[in-house]
Amino acid sequence: MPEDNLRIVLASRPDGRPKPENFRLEHVAVPAPSEGEVLLAIRYLSLDPYMRGRISAAKSYAASTEIGEVMTGGTVGEVVESRHPDFKPGDFALSHSGWQSHAVAAGSALRKLDPKAAPLTTALGVLGMPGFTAYAGLLTIGQPKPGETVVVAAASGPVGSAVGQIARIKGARAVGIAGGPEKCAYVRENFGFDAVIDHRDPDLAAKLAAACPNGIDVYFENVGGHVWDAVFPLFNMFARIPVCGLVAQYNASGDFPGPDRLPVLMRQVLSKSLMIRGFIQREFAEAQAPTFRREMAGWIAEGSVKYKEDIVEGLPNAPEAFIGLLEGRNFGKLVVKL
Amino acid sequence: MPEDNLRIVLASRPDGRPKPENFRLEHVAVPAPSEGEVLLAIRYLSLDPYMRGRISAAKSYAASTEIGEVMTGGTVGEVVESRHPDFKPGDFALSHSGWQSHAVAAGSALRKLDPKAAPLTTALGVLGMPGFTAYAGLLTIGQPKPGETVVVAAASGPVGSAVGQIARIKGARAVGIAGGPEKCAYVRENFGFDAVIDHRDPDLAAKLAAACPNGIDVYFENVGGHVWDAVFPLFNMFARIPVCGLVAQYNASGDFPGPDRLPVLMRQVLSKSLMIRGFIQREFAEAQAPTFRREMAGWIAEGSVKYKEDIVEGLPNAPEAFIGLLEGRNFGKLVVKL
Repeated sequence: MPEDNLRIVLASRPDGRPKPENFRLEHVAVPAPSEGEVLLAIRYLSLDPYMRGRISAAKSYAASTEIGEVMTGGTVGEVVESRHPDFKPGDFALSHSGWQSHAVAAGSALRKLDPKAAPLTTALGVLGMPGFTAYAGLLTIGQPKPGETVVVAAASGPVGSAVGQIARIKGARAVGIAGGPEKCAYVRENFGFDAVIDHRDPDLAAKLAAACPNGIDVYFENVGGHVWDAVFPLFNMFARIPVCGLVAQYNASGDFPGPDRLPVLMRQVLSKSLMIRGFIQREFAEAQAPTFRREMAGWIAEGSVKYKEDIVEGLPNAPEAFIGLLEGRNFGKLVVKL
Repeated sequence: MPEDNLRIVLASRPDGRPKPENFRLEHVAVPAPSEGEVLLAIRYLSLDPYMRGRISAAKSYAASTEIGEVMTGGTVGEVVESRHPDFKPGDFALSHSGWQSHAVAAGSALRKLDPKAAPLTTALGVLGMPGFTAYAGLLTIGQPKPGETVVVAAASGPVGSAVGQIARIKGARAVGIAGGPEKCAYVRENFGFDAVIDHRDPDLAAKLAAACPNGIDVYFENVGGHVWDAVFPLFNMFARIPVCGLVAQYNASGDFPGPDRLPVLMRQVLSKSLMIRGFIQREFAEAQAPTFRREMAGWIAEGSVKYKEDIVEGLPNAPEAFIGLLEGRNFGKLVVKL
């Protein structure tokens, strides 16, 4: 049996960019499972941009993490003690145990993972929540048609890379936006996007326009910020804009300086019959997740979807890795190995 | 045979609010129909907010009217000469002949109207484009469910009044916004809305919130402007926002002063999974117009949809009536009787 549970709790709410002192490492007793539960030793923790929303006091789609509570997060755990008939020690399971080394979970809330079918980390990335966000948002809201142009930012990340590759599977052109020459080259060469633009390029707008000679039919919005201004003039009639994240503005607070872009947006929404639709992947999970896992596993097996992971070692490094994620310092799906 | 064609052409593009001198009345020869065409004497001309977009140089969903061209518009005409087998003199037809007393049109582009089935003017209003805009936008994009709250502005106008009444037919609560006590009373008493707020009320936001104790599920956007700010905080999760008009900002040009409301909008789109969708009714016309005409005629016959018309006499009064329309001076569907 493990001697103690290492965990990271929210010490204080960040004002703007999170700092290391907003988080606190604690040692507490390892909990014991009740009937129907299992005790998990967490092997991998997923770090994702949505966590910034959970530690803000602002109302969002999910309840905030309270001060002193364990940071939330998707995890892969190994069963060390089981009081549920479906699990035995040594089994692996997907759970939502947060930033800690051990956790008790109801067996009914877990999905067993087969480490021989796919690397365990993929359950947190390309075969997990980020991959499903790309799949459901692109196919259900974006609905790319053959020959259309799909643009996505954070294209080297787990959502963006899947969006572009699925778009290509559906016969659309994929144009990615990423930060810096290394990521851009990777997106073009390894993920096979048709074109990639560096969002730090001062000529972003002109270069994006050149990369989209037939305009933009789907913009998968996961960053917000200045990329929007480059994308906005290029929308075609009936363009679709699934919105799953706004990482570039998560650390912002207070009023934004003018001019007011809302009336200009609404005018374009009207004159181009645009559709803007925010979503959280779990809206689609019940109906589509099994199909997604089967299709995505097939695409990975045949080589039409590739993925990249950025593995950080050790739970104490999670806060710094998370802060870096919000600034685009990760390169691929960010996972903490415990 | 008529001796001449009276018409109103675009004399110059308005800068902001249109003025009478942007329009010019002309007398020209009455055209002669070719084979397959008919000559129409226009009896009724529809005036609608979308016409402001057509006389602007800005790119929109439809080509601009050029300087010197006849102003565009839906019309009801009486056939005075026919070279098409489906029409004979004395027949009435719906056409898009614009601001003029006579016009030639292809018989294949006309829809014959039965003056005994419904007043001819309704083909321009509740049974025509505005009624169909309400029907298609509300039912296809808004999709109100029983018990939900639907909010619409310009609620005494032809689109808004139909939106609220159809919402109630579908079991939703209808909350209207209109300008001034007379229109508000009419919307509540004659159109049967559950609540009506005066948009000139300095407490608009608080009164709208009080009228929507369960939040807003559908906001049918046809005005823009300051009404949006009252509506915006009240959206429920998964609210739908069909956008068919922005009459409050049609006369605006140049930058809008800050703060920038776009990042705030996008944050709400994300955290509430909002859907914003611009549309023009003709996107849905082929699939839905016949069903609409049958259903709407039934609702009118049974008294569950009422309508109000504002009839102006004489084509020379069209420019002043149109200028007033953009400022909400009409009361009901604005039609010019020739």
